Amino acid sequence: MPASARRLTVIGGAVCTAEQRQLALETGREIARSGAILLCGGRTGIMEAAAEGAASEGGTTVGIMPGTGPDDSPPNRHIGLPIYTGLGQARNQVLVLSGEAVIGIGGSWGTLTEIGFAMRHGIPVVLLDSWSLEHPDGQGEPGMYRASSPIEAVETALRAASEESPK
Amino acid sequence: MPASARRLTVIGGAVCTAEQRQLALETGREIARSGAILLCGGRTGIMEAAAEGAASEGGTTVGIMPGTGPDDSPPNRHIGLPIYTGLGQARNQVLVLSGEAVIGIGGSWGTLTEIGFAMRHGIPVVLLDSWSLEHPDGQGEPGMYRASSPIEAVETALRAASEESPK
Amino acid sequence: MPASARRLTVIGGAVCTAEQRQLALETGREIARSGAILLCGGRTGIMEAAAEGAASEGGTTVGIMPGTGPDDSPPNRHIGLPIYTGLGQARNQVLVLSGEAVIGIGGSWGTLTEIGFAMRHGIPVVLLDSWSLEHPDGQGEPGMYRASSPIEAVETALRAASEESPK
Amino acid sequence: MPASARRLTVIGGAVCTAEQRQLALETGREIARSGAILLCGGRTGIMEAAAEGAASEGGTTVGIMPGTGPDDSPPNRHIGLPIYTGLGQARNQVLVLSGEAVIGIGGSWGTLTEIGFAMRHGIPVVLLDSWSLEHPDGQGEPGMYRASSPIEAVETALRAASEESPK
Repeated sequence: MPASARRLTVIGGAVCTAEQRQLALETGREIARSGAILLCGGRTGIMEAAAEGAASEGGTTVGIMPGTGPDDSPPNRHIGLPIYTGLGQARNQVLVLSGEAVIGIGGSWGTLTEIGFAMRHGIPVVLLDSWSLEHPDGQGEPGMYRASSPIEAVETALRAASEESPK
Repeated sequence: MPASARRLTVIGGAVCTAEQRQLALETGREIARSGAILLCGGRTGIMEAAAEGAASEGGTTVGIMPGTGPDDSPPNRHIGLPIYTGLGQARNQVLVLSGEAVIGIGGSWGTLTEIGFAMRHGIPVVLLDSWSLEHPDGQGEPGMYRASSPIEAVETALRAASEESPK
Repeated sequence: MPASARRLTVIGGAVCTAEQRQLALETGREIARSGAILLCGGRTGIMEAAAEGAASEGGTTVGIMPGTGPDDSPPNRHIGLPIYTGLGQARNQVLVLSGEAVIGIGGSWGTLTEIGFAMRHGIPVVLLDSWSLEHPDGQGEPGMYRASSPIEAVETALRAASEESPK
Repeated sequence: MPASARRLTVIGGAVCTAEQRQLALETGREIARSGAILLCGGRTGIMEAAAEGAASEGGTTVGIMPGTGPDDSPPNRHIGLPIYTGLGQARNQVLVLSGEAVIGIGGSWGTLTEIGFAMRHGIPVVLLDSWSLEHPDGQGEPGMYRASSPIEAVETALRAASEESPK
């Protein structure tokens, strides 16, 4: 794990469609191919698929777990480094802050909290088949990127991380 | 503060329009008139207006603060009971979980995290001039209530709290 | 609940001796008699006894709960206002920061975390039949108060809160 | 970073004596030599020395940071993977839960919270020149290990992690 490795967070729910699962798997692969570390929520669904993709390419996978340990919060089998928070869903803040950019796939409620945390803290968000948000002041969707493929999502995230967030 | 008092959370940003401020003020008043305790994020904008409204009717106001104390996180002057979390924006989880229903006004990113936390935990959400959300699976906006006035928002929240969330 | 009410936190474990329970009950009574709000962890043992004492004198009792709601974290029956954090034991930080001084009774591990958080943040700590701590640099117990009775503990806590912690 | 790598947490304050700094440096070295990942709080003092020691032996170093990013919470230069929590001192829970055993050096208040969290969750604690704790019920120091050298501390921690905590 080189100290200069980039860190990308994939957010998405524990339940997802087969198409979303495939998007997450490919996104994980692309992250590992780019040399970046993958962070995710460590559980099933999108989280598992993204970790599987990254691990299949030899990447480093970090799971930011909601529970206090493996008994109440078992990481999926593709997680190399589990971080146990014991915070429940408040771990979503930790997950988002620890990446230099966030890629969101699918439409869980947890994902919505993570989009909000990222935008609140100025961390770039790239969405793939995820929530559409309309601001009450009628400005349309504010300040997020949309991608139509995993490779576009990862390239956009890496570029946005370099430009906007000097972490 | 009777032990049986209902608890309603008002969520909304530190910056808001004059119209949203007025909605929050009226919502706070209606909450106090109903006998419920108002919980909010304790800061400016929607949070301040809602607390002002509740306090003006003699209601109890609780501020769930992001900082470690009054020096780094001063509550607005209408907060009767400040709870200092030291958690930054992760305090949004505490704010949402502590109410029996949530009323959202306006369109901040923090509000989006709070909508997500509430829906994730089965706590009813009533929106007044706030985010429109469209789920990627095309189901339209899932599981939230819309209100067109403060009194309708408070009545809907109290009814939903009684029906859905036996807290 | 007057806005100017003092806030005192009682910390102590879910399991305690009969003597410690009696100390907590009396401490809760003295807090309510002083007009201060009692904050505690909302569960059994010391937390329940302190809340019972305060409630028996008509005081306001706040429980900072570890779980996400009443199902996984039922407050004891003397808690007037439950605040659900969903943070597990990290709620100990919220409990400590929200009081102007802390009174510790008995010797649970959670109490030790709370003593540490309070001292770390400059919040006065008064101990009644609780941990003895010896610093590795041989300075003896640093910066805490000891009391030998509930009334002395509450008086010391209120005085220390006024002098040291201008919250 | 092999998936089966052990994880050891070193806890200790941002300020320490020269002797404690040397103990932390050696402890970090021994952790890396054993093949384990080092977790620490990512800041100065004991945290920096332990990370320096581990990095000097080619080990993996993880910093569980209190702030929201590098601007408000810069990791020391020996941290390979920073995890930003935005939780302030509540990050101590995350730090402790993420290791399979904890080695404590020196006597900061944060260290005391970490000892408490570890013991509360059944995670073995090994102390090197750190707090002495005496339980109010007169049982002496309950359930922790003492070591007199870094190598003894790391061996004790690895053995205790294997026996007591099947993570």
